[in-house]
Amino acid sequence: MNACMRAVTRHGLHRGLQVFGVREGYDGLIRGDLVRLSARDVGNVIQRGGTVLGSSRSREFRTPAGREAAARSLQDAAIDGLVVCGGNGTCAGALALAEQWSGGIIAIPASIDNDINGTDTTVGYDTAINTALEAIDRIRDTAEAQERIFLVEVMGRGCGAIALDVALAGGAVAALVPEAPVDLDALLRLLTTWRDAGRRSMIIIVAEGEEHGGAFEVARRLQPHVPTDIRVTVLGHIQRGGAPTAASRILATRLGVAAVDALLDGATSVMVGLKGNQVTLVPLHEAVAAQRPADAAMLQIIGGLAG
Amino acid sequence: MNACMRAVTRHGLHRGLQVFGVREGYDGLIRGDLVRLSARDVGNVIQRGGTVLGSSRSREFRTPAGREAAARSLQDAAIDGLVVCGGNGTCAGALALAEQWSGGIIAIPASIDNDINGTDTTVGYDTAINTALEAIDRIRDTAEAQERIFLVEVMGRGCGAIALDVALAGGAVAALVPEAPVDLDALLRLLTTWRDAGRRSMIIIVAEGEEHGGAFEVARRLQPHVPTDIRVTVLGHIQRGGAPTAASRILATRLGVAAVDALLDGATSVMVGLKGNQVTLVPLHEAVAAQRPADAAMLQIIGGLAG
Amino acid sequence: MNACMRAVTRHGLHRGLQVFGVREGYDGLIRGDLVRLSARDVGNVIQRGGTVLGSSRSREFRTPAGREAAARSLQDAAIDGLVVCGGNGTCAGALALAEQWSGGIIAIPASIDNDINGTDTTVGYDTAINTALEAIDRIRDTAEAQERIFLVEVMGRGCGAIALDVALAGGAVAALVPEAPVDLDALLRLLTTWRDAGRRSMIIIVAEGEEHGGAFEVARRLQPHVPTDIRVTVLGHIQRGGAPTAASRILATRLGVAAVDALLDGATSVMVGLKGNQVTLVPLHEAVAAQRPADAAMLQIIGGLAG
Amino acid sequence: MNACMRAVTRHGLHRGLQVFGVREGYDGLIRGDLVRLSARDVGNVIQRGGTVLGSSRSREFRTPAGREAAARSLQDAAIDGLVVCGGNGTCAGALALAEQWSGGIIAIPASIDNDINGTDTTVGYDTAINTALEAIDRIRDTAEAQERIFLVEVMGRGCGAIALDVALAGGAVAALVPEAPVDLDALLRLLTTWRDAGRRSMIIIVAEGEEHGGAFEVARRLQPHVPTDIRVTVLGHIQRGGAPTAASRILATRLGVAAVDALLDGATSVMVGLKGNQVTLVPLHEAVAAQRPADAAMLQIIGGLAG
Repeated sequence: MNACMRAVTRHGLHRGLQVFGVREGYDGLIRGDLVRLSARDVGNVIQRGGTVLGSSRSREFRTPAGREAAARSLQDAAIDGLVVCGGNGTCAGALALAEQWSGGIIAIPASIDNDINGTDTTVGYDTAINTALEAIDRIRDTAEAQERIFLVEVMGRGCGAIALDVALAGGAVAALVPEAPVDLDALLRLLTTWRDAGRRSMIIIVAEGEEHGGAFEVARRLQPHVPTDIRVTVLGHIQRGGAPTAASRILATRLGVAAVDALLDGATSVMVGLKGNQVTLVPLHEAVAAQRPADAAMLQIIGGLAG
Repeated sequence: MNACMRAVTRHGLHRGLQVFGVREGYDGLIRGDLVRLSARDVGNVIQRGGTVLGSSRSREFRTPAGREAAARSLQDAAIDGLVVCGGNGTCAGALALAEQWSGGIIAIPASIDNDINGTDTTVGYDTAINTALEAIDRIRDTAEAQERIFLVEVMGRGCGAIALDVALAGGAVAALVPEAPVDLDALLRLLTTWRDAGRRSMIIIVAEGEEHGGAFEVARRLQPHVPTDIRVTVLGHIQRGGAPTAASRILATRLGVAAVDALLDGATSVMVGLKGNQVTLVPLHEAVAAQRPADAAMLQIIGGLAG
Repeated sequence: MNACMRAVTRHGLHRGLQVFGVREGYDGLIRGDLVRLSARDVGNVIQRGGTVLGSSRSREFRTPAGREAAARSLQDAAIDGLVVCGGNGTCAGALALAEQWSGGIIAIPASIDNDINGTDTTVGYDTAINTALEAIDRIRDTAEAQERIFLVEVMGRGCGAIALDVALAGGAVAALVPEAPVDLDALLRLLTTWRDAGRRSMIIIVAEGEEHGGAFEVARRLQPHVPTDIRVTVLGHIQRGGAPTAASRILATRLGVAAVDALLDGATSVMVGLKGNQVTLVPLHEAVAAQRPADAAMLQIIGGLAG
Repeated sequence: MNACMRAVTRHGLHRGLQVFGVREGYDGLIRGDLVRLSARDVGNVIQRGGTVLGSSRSREFRTPAGREAAARSLQDAAIDGLVVCGGNGTCAGALALAEQWSGGIIAIPASIDNDINGTDTTVGYDTAINTALEAIDRIRDTAEAQERIFLVEVMGRGCGAIALDVALAGGAVAALVPEAPVDLDALLRLLTTWRDAGRRSMIIIVAEGEEHGGAFEVARRLQPHVPTDIRVTVLGHIQRGGAPTAASRILATRLGVAAVDALLDGATSVMVGLKGNQVTLVPLHEAVAAQRPADAAMLQIIGGLAG
């Protein structure tokens, strides 16, 4: 997020624009909380997690009156273009605002869930999976010492991308994701197969949104049927922080530069996304129309390589 | 643990002894699973989490017959002295074994809970609190962006040492620990005070063994009475892994060296501990007699400095 | 590297093959040091840096006699296909071996320099830039406290990819790379510009292979012309270790699976690479024919965004 | 540093004082750059490396006129007590100021070199050795893959504490420190012994202030006499940054609280130090009188355990 803001600001200034930051997202936009940004103002932020401008889940912005107020703030400040950075909710908000404000609007996809349609990946996703992976590596360290089953709950309410990538990279035996319900009987058979093959400990990744209700609930159902202790970790908001990875910062910078260029080219109501390592423009209504489908190939690779 | 084994092995060889490792703790001792160790065998392990020899929570060793078998293994291999490394259970086991085996027995206190009597700190404790702290730092990164209360459950069934140290070092507003029950009404008043002072987000550390039943249960009870979202993280076994910190490795090395020296000096049924930065010998029956009391001063410091 | 080996082994077994590992690279191949691998043999290695099989920079393999011996080892063991994992030297070796052995040969590009033609990225590159970035973030922490210029030397003898990516992601003011010689006078003017704009401290990334001879030499030449202290860090082999990132593990796994599939499809003397997020087969002679050109766009982005 | 400032501020407010921060150390004191601090002002800083107030190596403060101006700033602001946080230079400055200002002065020892007399450890030291250790662990990852000698230069101009602790915790074969000159011939004999014992790679820690002139110079002299490649890493300012460890934050907090209490008890010209895990007051003239001697026991332990 900070890397996005830095890139938009500096590239905007470089291209001769005046640049303003909006504090606390759409809430700040509604109350007109704009602050002029210089190149120095966005110095020494690229390595910081979170966002120095603040953010919000604005209820007011979901009302026509709220968006009306936001449009007025932009007009009052004589703003020509707006770059927003966020997930599906942010993109949907941008699309709605476009009906009430005539300036150019560009969205940069930022979400730790990688659940946005029209882009291969999102700002922050690489950071989130590496954070989750570090946690799993730590669990593995002790995993071999004693016979145990570890359930690790990762983020992902409607989307199992994190769970799948983390399971693959972390050597988990299985991943439970919202998109592909897994019969617990089938999971128990898999655990037995690994155990018979001499494996002492196993890690299972659980997306928070999978059908059984999360890692604690899965543990409660599995425990009576396995001879080994089941231990649960719930990562929660750990995954949202930490210094961004190189890939997240570079992506944020590329998309931030592209967003400014797109605005100056007259584009509006589009998202700057990444497809096959190329920056592309995606109409915002496509980005928010549907959720990204789970990667079937990933599930299959995990099946063959687990452990 | 690995640093302990390395120090005992190398210092033992240095002092002219033959050194054997026991695989999988007391279980391995019962079945005589001993392996001769050279200086090279314990090379390149000091940085590894977990233990390369394996460990166990041996049920059999808790029976006289089990300990009888262990004593026989030691006699058969003509072992003169035994160094064990572990927590209260390990120390109690060592004390029980001393009744059935006449060799020297020295214990090195290793526990992520820092709950062993007679030593200021334990091997692995510094690593565990730093791991928990990293997780909390990540949560703080996003904490300021939105108004939220975060509950972070750390290890500590009967002992709140981790929770207290982590709360102090992590800038939490409170710590719920087994030794000092906290009225949830008092906690709610504290949250309100901070909120009125303009604080947007707050972190509360919950030891797994505190009286309400852990972080999820505390969240369930607090949520109806606060206007902000409560989010839960359960660290679980993350705290047991990871590369050991410098302090943990240096402590393990000092105590490993001291354990070998103590054996050669004819000591037995003692634990090598650290008191005021000096290595001391503590009778094993004192080490296991009582639990370490919680640090009252710590609780008070947290009260005054929170955030 | 370990993730590659794991994926090749498990996917090979999954597709019905027998799989052998070669210890210590081409040297081990020459002396026929092959070891049969099971699924369990490659368990618990995906998170480890380095390579559990060992590697070598074999001088003997560069001679026809050496490769003759390697070919004989493969024939004696009745091997049908070989998957090698490494950089330009490894790929060139594989190509030379193909003249003396008739089995299928597939190369997986692994190099921290990202200097291999025909693939967007290499196994290990993402890990290396994140490791370098962590070091730079640490330097930034103190950078603002005092007025200083920091030179950080990163790997890259003939290729500035690491330096460019790290400079961009780390907010450096400049990167000195082998492909684009920088006049030190121009660099001094840039430093003066930033200083006049109120910037207290600056980080410059120096690829080890840039024309002046590395960071210490650049510091020696710059120091007389700047009023602030210049401090030097040389990362060296730090960049080669550490737990691999999620992206490195996932790439290694994808390419390992693809290498096995390519062998079974009858391909030979090809490298499995990544182009625009798709796995592709590249003739080995193309991969080794030329070095990857520096990314001109990257240099430009750094110019506009520095700090 | 930030944890110190936070503790002094909050405990000072808790005890009924008004608290001011001085920007950029003694330079700021000279120009009277004081800022009133509230509990909220020092929120969310405990996890940050560096110091949010800034620091300086003030030349002016070394002159009587400079200290005169500083004393005047304190009088003008009606300050009764001053808490300074830093190394030997800071302590000496505090002692000199005491001759020109009558208020209470307490020093908190903060130095990554652990070179201050009268305290077992200093704020920041634990962080510095863990940072160096992480770097060495990364080098070890690849160390075993190929036969190599690695020289790692760590901080320590006049004091080898970091080098010794890091060598012990990192499994290095030797440490070159300012206090105990090592004959390079003796070092070569040690390397040969290890090599004959089958060891493939070796790490040697070099304190920047050792007699030969640092790691590059040592490498230049050793290389002609060894058959294996020597690689050099110079950590430099990496060791000064990074999020502080738990031990550093807890120590800073304890000493910060103690400093405020000491001021209120009427103490002056003392340093709050740690001796055997107890906070103690040490006259400033003792703290600056001599350098901490190297730990002879440490050197001996390293000799017996290397690798």
